[in-house]
Amino acid sequence: MKLRWLLLGLAGLGIGALGLAWLESGLAARAEESPRAAIVAVLDEQQSAWNQGDVDTFMKGYWNSPEVTFAASSGITRGWQPVMERYRKNYPDQKAMGHLDFSEVQVRALGKDAALVLGRWHLKRETDELGGVFTLVFQSFPEGWKIIHDHTSLDAKKP
Amino acid sequence: MKLRWLLLGLAGLGIGALGLAWLESGLAARAEESPRAAIVAVLDEQQSAWNQGDVDTFMKGYWNSPEVTFAASSGITRGWQPVMERYRKNYPDQKAMGHLDFSEVQVRALGKDAALVLGRWHLKRETDELGGVFTLVFQSFPEGWKIIHDHTSLDAKKP
Repeated sequence: MKLRWLLLGLAGLGIGALGLAWLESGLAARAEESPRAAIVAVLDEQQSAWNQGDVDTFMKGYWNSPEVTFAASSGITRGWQPVMERYRKNYPDQKAMGHLDFSEVQVRALGKDAALVLGRWHLKRETDELGGVFTLVFQSFPEGWKIIHDHTSLDAKKP
Repeated sequence: MKLRWLLLGLAGLGIGALGLAWLESGLAARAEESPRAAIVAVLDEQQSAWNQGDVDTFMKGYWNSPEVTFAASSGITRGWQPVMERYRKNYPDQKAMGHLDFSEVQVRALGKDAALVLGRWHLKRETDELGGVFTLVFQSFPEGWKIIHDHTSLDAKKP
């Protein structure tokens, strides 16, 4: 009788230990994945804000600083406010904004507080479609992961 | 007599201590400056190699890895060999390579082993001139600072 209780106790301890190990590995995996997941969440929020014509929410993905930069074939735009004004000028209404899709997103860690993100963007509008590649540098801030630099290219027209 | 020697000894120690402090502050400043200086040296070497028609030396600025990436209006090129082949195809001889200048180079640290570099490039050839902006992400390796990602834009033609 004593032996049976002992075995049951040991089995209980074993199951408990397995449970703890499983929980721990899950938490560790989540901690490792979190920068990637947090960055993908920022891009998802930007995409859906854009598709609702909501530039204010779209701009929350960028570091709100005069040091944030945006590079393109028009040169380098410096500062959160000028970056927003550039978007408002180039995409004055929801028709011009069209439907945005990000794809082929690749996240590469740069130390623990920065990441390099590459991907493709595609814009479908009533009268045209355009797209290209982007390079984003994200940095981790107390308020979350933010884009500190964006370099966006328009695909060259196929000859 | 003894006092004179003592004062001379103390003065000698003082001068020695000042010298050490000066040396140490110089070394500390150099260690702080070194990522920026090392990165600028890589760009200087790339520029002068290009201007001698030496693509092999130019390519030493890039991380020699299948993971190195180059983004442009032609899309994303992955791997050191394909990046080199792209340069050789687009700039087949020294006449096509022309004279390259980098300017307005800005280096921003991303942790201690990575940096974000923005700048302008300008190419002067016998028959034309072209230029644009670039985004480089550098990473520190045992063999030095190398470009792990390059996003290069051509300036849009002024209307």
